[in-house]
Amino acid sequence: MIITKKGICCQGFKANGIKKGKYGVAIILSEAAANCALMITSNRIKAAPLLVSQEHFSRREIFGIVANSGNANAYTGRKGIEDAKKMCKLAAKELDLKPENFFVASTGVIGRRMDVTAVEEGIKKAAKNLKSSSEASLKAAKAILTTDRFPKLVSVRARLKSGEEIEIGGIAKGAGMIAPQLKHATLMCFLTTNAYVPKDKIKDILESAVEQSFNATIVDGDTSTNDIAALLANGLAGNEDLDENFQGALNYVARELAKMIAKDGEGATKLLEITVQNARSRKDAVKAARAIARSNLVKTAFFGCDPNWGRIIAALGYSGAKFNPEKLSLFFEAGNNKACLIDRGKVLAYQGAKELKAAEKILKAREIKVIVDLHSGRESATVFGCDLTHDYVKINATYTS
Amino acid sequence: MIITKKGICCQGFKANGIKKGKYGVAIILSEAAANCALMITSNRIKAAPLLVSQEHFSRREIFGIVANSGNANAYTGRKGIEDAKKMCKLAAKELDLKPENFFVASTGVIGRRMDVTAVEEGIKKAAKNLKSSSEASLKAAKAILTTDRFPKLVSVRARLKSGEEIEIGGIAKGAGMIAPQLKHATLMCFLTTNAYVPKDKIKDILESAVEQSFNATIVDGDTSTNDIAALLANGLAGNEDLDENFQGALNYVARELAKMIAKDGEGATKLLEITVQNARSRKDAVKAARAIARSNLVKTAFFGCDPNWGRIIAALGYSGAKFNPEKLSLFFEAGNNKACLIDRGKVLAYQGAKELKAAEKILKAREIKVIVDLHSGRESATVFGCDLTHDYVKINATYTS
Repeated sequence: MIITKKGICCQGFKANGIKKGKYGVAIILSEAAANCALMITSNRIKAAPLLVSQEHFSRREIFGIVANSGNANAYTGRKGIEDAKKMCKLAAKELDLKPENFFVASTGVIGRRMDVTAVEEGIKKAAKNLKSSSEASLKAAKAILTTDRFPKLVSVRARLKSGEEIEIGGIAKGAGMIAPQLKHATLMCFLTTNAYVPKDKIKDILESAVEQSFNATIVDGDTSTNDIAALLANGLAGNEDLDENFQGALNYVARELAKMIAKDGEGATKLLEITVQNARSRKDAVKAARAIARSNLVKTAFFGCDPNWGRIIAALGYSGAKFNPEKLSLFFEAGNNKACLIDRGKVLAYQGAKELKAAEKILKAREIKVIVDLHSGRESATVFGCDLTHDYVKINATYTS
Repeated sequence: MIITKKGICCQGFKANGIKKGKYGVAIILSEAAANCALMITSNRIKAAPLLVSQEHFSRREIFGIVANSGNANAYTGRKGIEDAKKMCKLAAKELDLKPENFFVASTGVIGRRMDVTAVEEGIKKAAKNLKSSSEASLKAAKAILTTDRFPKLVSVRARLKSGEEIEIGGIAKGAGMIAPQLKHATLMCFLTTNAYVPKDKIKDILESAVEQSFNATIVDGDTSTNDIAALLANGLAGNEDLDENFQGALNYVARELAKMIAKDGEGATKLLEITVQNARSRKDAVKAARAIARSNLVKTAFFGCDPNWGRIIAALGYSGAKFNPEKLSLFFEAGNNKACLIDRGKVLAYQGAKELKAAEKILKAREIKVIVDLHSGRESATVFGCDLTHDYVKINATYTS
């Protein structure tokens, strides 16, 4: 597998993005109808564009995606549905397709009608200049950002066992309201591939990639009304079937995008990769890792470079995961540095101990691994998170105004 | 029911508190053996003093409580159990009782051995000067604080239907790691009464009071290893049985203490009282209210006086509660001001609307009620919470060091 710079513009895909004021519009287009999978938020309140995308998905003739930032078009009633449909209609008109050939997605403030004129202007401009290039992909990635600090693109080339080379690309946005719990999927992530992905497999393939990436990412524990993940496969690579190399490459792309989202969590200064090992069940491992990633006390301690590991075990304790406190081990890791804070119930990171000093040093890194070994079974899970900082409060105390 | 100033010092109860450096010690003592109820955290990791208290509870001869701040004595192994027992032993020696006559509780940093010398010194001093006065009660309330900004005491006098006057008092500490989920109880809250409370009723009575007070309080969503609530009833009032006046008065004391804890949440500037009405089930109402109270996005918006109500409905949406988004109503209330932001699915607080302006004005108050009406059933729940501020991050980025 080779990392490429194509971003979302795999063979046969074009893209563009326009940003003007607080509104941004991105369009992604395949030259051939794509097999596709769609996952949307499990939040009971689902944004209008997600409902429209679901409807279009049911017709199974998807060529592209039209997305906007600046307004979530969520809790906007019938008018919101009309606005989302308008977006598809206009994109279709500009690109000589049918409205139902598009997925549509929105991100921004909840509960306000969108400025349709601004979005329509963006769609027209973006549609006029669709290209297949890394620049075009970057423009699309930038257009969907809100409070994100950097665009998120990942693309790879991989070889199937049958010999064909395939490409996979993805763009995503994250920042805040990030705790995807996708029954069918979450957040704003668009994945493309030139591989042929059979219709009866594409759903499972996307779900499997999302499970260990976006669904394992927590910025603030708030699950959005607008989470969406889509995979479009246009089949131009000419492969007849798929093997695990494809799933591996897709997982890589999704996981890297998820890590970027955690790293770029609102106000975040640190990426936390929390792994819970040897749990009794996968469910227990996920519960435990999520509780640690979501804990405000853990997150602020990491911000303050404070090796207050008691907060981690407190989070473990209320996570609902079953384990024996006297068996657990706890490690911090960054680069080549590793500290063992607790060894099978024995505290090594007591005051004055060298393991505590080693932990303190690790906490100064920008990417930190927290490893909990429950020694209670064989299942494990990793969750990506970030610290909780002054800037998170600053950003979110004044978002709508 | 009359509010009194006795605090924890109901008839027959004495108290004292000593604070020195980061350690504090409080003792509460009844002149007669008390019927009692004990609730401790549901966190899988339970602090040593809780386990010792449970053991002593099983012997049913409780006269008092000895508690310290400055160290949680949690995840401290066998040594921690010994330390907690030492505290009871010393209190017993000073007060001519048996170690098992005491409940013991601790609050502070998790995972470190306590400075037993400092705590022992505190116990000796506190025991020498136990008094029955509001000053003594205040000293005890102050001694158990950590990052709290003010002591928390509430006391009342009420008349039973049978004519006897009874007293109820309580002290509590809160601040951070507050999201009590007491299977049997939570946080550090000590309640006393001179009423006779039959042994077969006292457990239910305490649980009922805790359910709608401490278990309905969320500061940061982290459930502590050290939560404890105890009710000691010495029976000196001479009543032969109880009626709902007692439960009502106890509920009042517990709820007022819980509100103080939310108001004094780490860094908090606002008390939020979140009520979800007309849910299909009590469980749904609790889930919905807790999700709102715990949402970092909701909490930061309140800090910033930002009427970003979309975050509230997003939290409702992922809470797991069942409801129809098109039926919900949302109100903000402070003092005599009330704003209706959503009326049965219709958004009234759109940009420029007078309801949005009214909401903005309400957000400047220090105590704000958020009322969600799901119009889906008849059950309701109230949860107490607070905003998320720069000071929360500041306090918790540097707590152990």
